[in-house]
Amino acid sequence: MTESRKLFSPSDYDELVDKYDTWLFDCDGVLWRGTTLIDGALEVLQLLRSRKKSIIFVTNNATLSRASYKKKFDKLGVEAHVDEIFGSAYAAAVYLSSVVKLPKDKKVFVIGMAGLEEELRDEGISFVGGTDPADNTLEPFPATPYKLDPAVGAVLCGLDLAVNYTKLSKAFIHLNTDPSCLFLVTNEDSTYPAQGGLLLPGAGAISAPLRYALDRDPISTGKPAQTMLDCIKAKHNFDTERTIMVGDRLNTDILFGKQGGLSTLLVLTGITQESDLRSNAPPVAIPDFVTNSIGDLKQIKSQGS
Amino acid sequence: MTESRKLFSPSDYDELVDKYDTWLFDCDGVLWRGTTLIDGALEVLQLLRSRKKSIIFVTNNATLSRASYKKKFDKLGVEAHVDEIFGSAYAAAVYLSSVVKLPKDKKVFVIGMAGLEEELRDEGISFVGGTDPADNTLEPFPATPYKLDPAVGAVLCGLDLAVNYTKLSKAFIHLNTDPSCLFLVTNEDSTYPAQGGLLLPGAGAISAPLRYALDRDPISTGKPAQTMLDCIKAKHNFDTERTIMVGDRLNTDILFGKQGGLSTLLVLTGITQESDLRSNAPPVAIPDFVTNSIGDLKQIKSQGS
Repeated sequence: MTESRKLFSPSDYDELVDKYDTWLFDCDGVLWRGTTLIDGALEVLQLLRSRKKSIIFVTNNATLSRASYKKKFDKLGVEAHVDEIFGSAYAAAVYLSSVVKLPKDKKVFVIGMAGLEEELRDEGISFVGGTDPADNTLEPFPATPYKLDPAVGAVLCGLDLAVNYTKLSKAFIHLNTDPSCLFLVTNEDSTYPAQGGLLLPGAGAISAPLRYALDRDPISTGKPAQTMLDCIKAKHNFDTERTIMVGDRLNTDILFGKQGGLSTLLVLTGITQESDLRSNAPPVAIPDFVTNSIGDLKQIKSQGS
Repeated sequence: MTESRKLFSPSDYDELVDKYDTWLFDCDGVLWRGTTLIDGALEVLQLLRSRKKSIIFVTNNATLSRASYKKKFDKLGVEAHVDEIFGSAYAAAVYLSSVVKLPKDKKVFVIGMAGLEEELRDEGISFVGGTDPADNTLEPFPATPYKLDPAVGAVLCGLDLAVNYTKLSKAFIHLNTDPSCLFLVTNEDSTYPAQGGLLLPGAGAISAPLRYALDRDPISTGKPAQTMLDCIKAKHNFDTERTIMVGDRLNTDILFGKQGGLSTLLVLTGITQESDLRSNAPPVAIPDFVTNSIGDLKQIKSQGS
């Protein structure tokens, strides 16, 4: 078992930055926590840009479209461009349009929020469910006999704070009635950190009733699934050998990087604690490098300094 | 592997009835389907009563209290007494009051419907959540910072047609924050047959988000869990050797009977088809006897005939 290398000194960080041209960043727990920037994150991103590094933001957050996610960067004063942002909602939409090539007369039944719908719309995918008021109800299902829509060719499930029995039932009926109906999830995160760091059930928990009732596993388009990396590769050219994934979760970020043949840097400002790496159970993925915080990279030299 | 015995002739049925004094019946798929009685079920129950057999109804339906479930029998013209009816909601309430002996100053957080609340109330168990209008909302959670109620000592989850993110989040926070908080489910049925036989996600699917987010298995009080049998035994005396469980599901009814040391009779009017017994994968439980329908027992002699 390879050990992770813990980084400390300015020369450690300089060496690291010299080694990689493309930097993939998870956001929550790495660059910010909730609405608070991690100390030094802003300067480090600017330093990397000054050193002509490519920066890509890779998030499993499927409640926001890239355009809305960009607004979060703007608010925090972090430079970011929409084409640098890859969210699992976008990856799901691209997967449906470019990999599955969902026929134009087919629709997706959505359990998810406006951001997911926005990405589907942008990729020209028709959908039902989602934020449709008719499906956002706590009335017992079915109020009237449910007529299966034969145009539904896929069910896509992301984090949905308005999840309810009607949406779950409709999704279930489609998948249970038609074995050729695709079952996609934006990501399988068991939890996510809400405002103030409060841990709440994540997108994986939202799709769990369907997995359980159907005894069927979905295709995921979020980290650690390589679908997300394929989606990034379709839009950006990079040399995997000179690319590093920076994240705070072993079972998503670090596993994602490892499986994609990238180098990996774990930061300890989010979910994973240093003690998790030393626990008796072997970790799900071992990062190449570990540092306390992305802010530690402030010690590198800027271009020309 | 023991084979099931398929029953055909009047003497088969007479022999069966002679052998067992106590008859445990699953209801949906055995005595009725939705709101339609299975042909002959009424007569067979009357015949068994005329032969002085004890009859007990054992259902995983946790949306109705025993009192409400009795009304269903009344409507269908089937003789039944409340103390003959064991539902998984009742089993959960008895488990909390008699096995766990939940302290009087502790409460249960409920994901479930009025019938479950009724059984808890009858057993003197305090609860929050459930049908409380404050928790039956599709507003994003938390609307205001959630204050953990330290009096909650257990989370109990049954089928809830008004399940939503607020209830799931509160249940999750209690279980995630306090490892001593009990995690109970009324049953783990993946699906249930709604009106017209439409299959919809069952109670097991409702608790699946919690299992997934917590990576923790709950205690179940419904079939096949033996908690249900313990609950029946606490109220009725019977000789397990002269007791038979009649049901339509291998993974609940038949497994429940087998694990409890009862004999088992599978009927083919519900979920399990005869072909399921002959499939390549070994069935989860092999019934001692199989018959097409409970109505087949009409062929037995009534007392004195």
